[in-house]
Amino acid sequence: METFIVECHDQVNDQLEKILPSEKEPGERLNAAIRYSVFSGGKRIRPLLCFGSACAVGEPDENTTKIAAALEMMHTYSLIHDDLPAMDDDDLRRGKRACHREFDEGTAILAGDALQSLAIKQLTELSDIDPSINLELIRLLVRGSGTQGMVTGQAIDMASTGAQVDLPTLVEMHRLKTAAMIQSSVLMGALGTGNATEDQLDALKSYSTAIGVAFQIQDDILDVESTTQDMGKNQGADTRAEKSTFTSVLGVDSAKENVKELYDDCINSLEPLGESADKLRHIANFIVTRNF
Amino acid sequence: METFIVECHDQVNDQLEKILPSEKEPGERLNAAIRYSVFSGGKRIRPLLCFGSACAVGEPDENTTKIAAALEMMHTYSLIHDDLPAMDDDDLRRGKRACHREFDEGTAILAGDALQSLAIKQLTELSDIDPSINLELIRLLVRGSGTQGMVTGQAIDMASTGAQVDLPTLVEMHRLKTAAMIQSSVLMGALGTGNATEDQLDALKSYSTAIGVAFQIQDDILDVESTTQDMGKNQGADTRAEKSTFTSVLGVDSAKENVKELYDDCINSLEPLGESADKLRHIANFIVTRNF
Repeated sequence: METFIVECHDQVNDQLEKILPSEKEPGERLNAAIRYSVFSGGKRIRPLLCFGSACAVGEPDENTTKIAAALEMMHTYSLIHDDLPAMDDDDLRRGKRACHREFDEGTAILAGDALQSLAIKQLTELSDIDPSINLELIRLLVRGSGTQGMVTGQAIDMASTGAQVDLPTLVEMHRLKTAAMIQSSVLMGALGTGNATEDQLDALKSYSTAIGVAFQIQDDILDVESTTQDMGKNQGADTRAEKSTFTSVLGVDSAKENVKELYDDCINSLEPLGESADKLRHIANFIVTRNF
Repeated sequence: METFIVECHDQVNDQLEKILPSEKEPGERLNAAIRYSVFSGGKRIRPLLCFGSACAVGEPDENTTKIAAALEMMHTYSLIHDDLPAMDDDDLRRGKRACHREFDEGTAILAGDALQSLAIKQLTELSDIDPSINLELIRLLVRGSGTQGMVTGQAIDMASTGAQVDLPTLVEMHRLKTAAMIQSSVLMGALGTGNATEDQLDALKSYSTAIGVAFQIQDDILDVESTTQDMGKNQGADTRAEKSTFTSVLGVDSAKENVKELYDDCINSLEPLGESADKLRHIANFIVTRNF
């Protein structure tokens, strides 16, 4: 598994290195900010899910790497914008200064904007793929990141800050803010191989729904129990920002119980895929046991 | 011509009305901000060019309307972000309060982000179109709006503010910031009909290159000569912000001479397209004679 993670990271990083605008091209400061944020480390969970899912239905190839790079760029854009003073106002990300602190707010806004467009651009540069499948991949990325996903999730998050939120609202917020992109990552990895059957996609849909929520609950548990050093972002930030979290609504013990149940759901969903889904099983395990 | 403009505005506005998230859907404040900015008026130049170009090579249809809506959403996103305090810090846009003044900065950042994704989404919802052409349309929109266009243009603009800029840099900045999207608008309108030949696209490329630069020079002339009321944004803002403009670099008279020459280039480029390009001729005339 360790080899798989390292290989996946290497391939995605090489691809990002190749396609991101160089610091010598016009817009030097913007390009430096883009590269700073993309190469600030990070768990690369979405690329891992994309590769794991490609393995579950076929063979990862050059397109898998490009899809994974697109997912990571889209995710990085959201981190840069979420950290802005007008949003969550965080100055630490992935253990380094947030983009707007290392550069400036205007550059950070543009870096996020640029990464959103670079992610879509990357998906228009796949090779030897049925154009209809290619369009479906773009549809899925937009569904995860746009108004049916991440952006609206962040809007609800901002509107809810300081207010008491009930469990259904919290689940809906994180379904949009995080789980939608996690689901897109899984489905895109499988679709990109050109081999995915409807039954396989159904199983992957169930898997990704469960792991998306589990991911967020684990994040909330870590916000309470981990350290700033382990997390690479400010520990306890959600509590201080008076955000409702799964731990504040459910309590830590019940939140942990939920993660366990969701993990079981993940594993059960993968049953029809047999051994080829082992990587997805390992990723699920990593997601619910990580301490950062 | 008046009828053409009104019909084009109506069709694009109807389409935008239909597809933009409603203020009753989750993310109410975000959705309100999106609609506020999109329906704040505006010349709808990019939709006009898209329709004009469709007429030049075939018949505008439902897809033309969707492409035009995508262009307008992408343009509106750029206006919202450009107006932010960390960027150009403008509080007036299209005769109304800028999005971040009417709502708040966080919501304005998200509204821009959302519109960028909604624009791409719209292009994945065309009907009866060759998927390869559909992908090319997405490629063109990203080329106009992303790092090969608008975003990098804005980054160079920000880096140049307060500095003396020479003419080649100024031309390159506006080629990226404005002309690239103008060119995409023209090419997408033609491509979307499914009828465009290589020769026609070549003629349209020359036309759009010339009209894109003419558009920006005229904007700079208006920044000096028009009134805030006519412009719908703060007159003289560029001068106050110590931005290099075509009028500051060339002088007003020489800038006007340039607009005239570029207009002639436009008209000459359209020669091979015959009478079917009359709408594009009228739009060019409108662009260089407008006082807002």
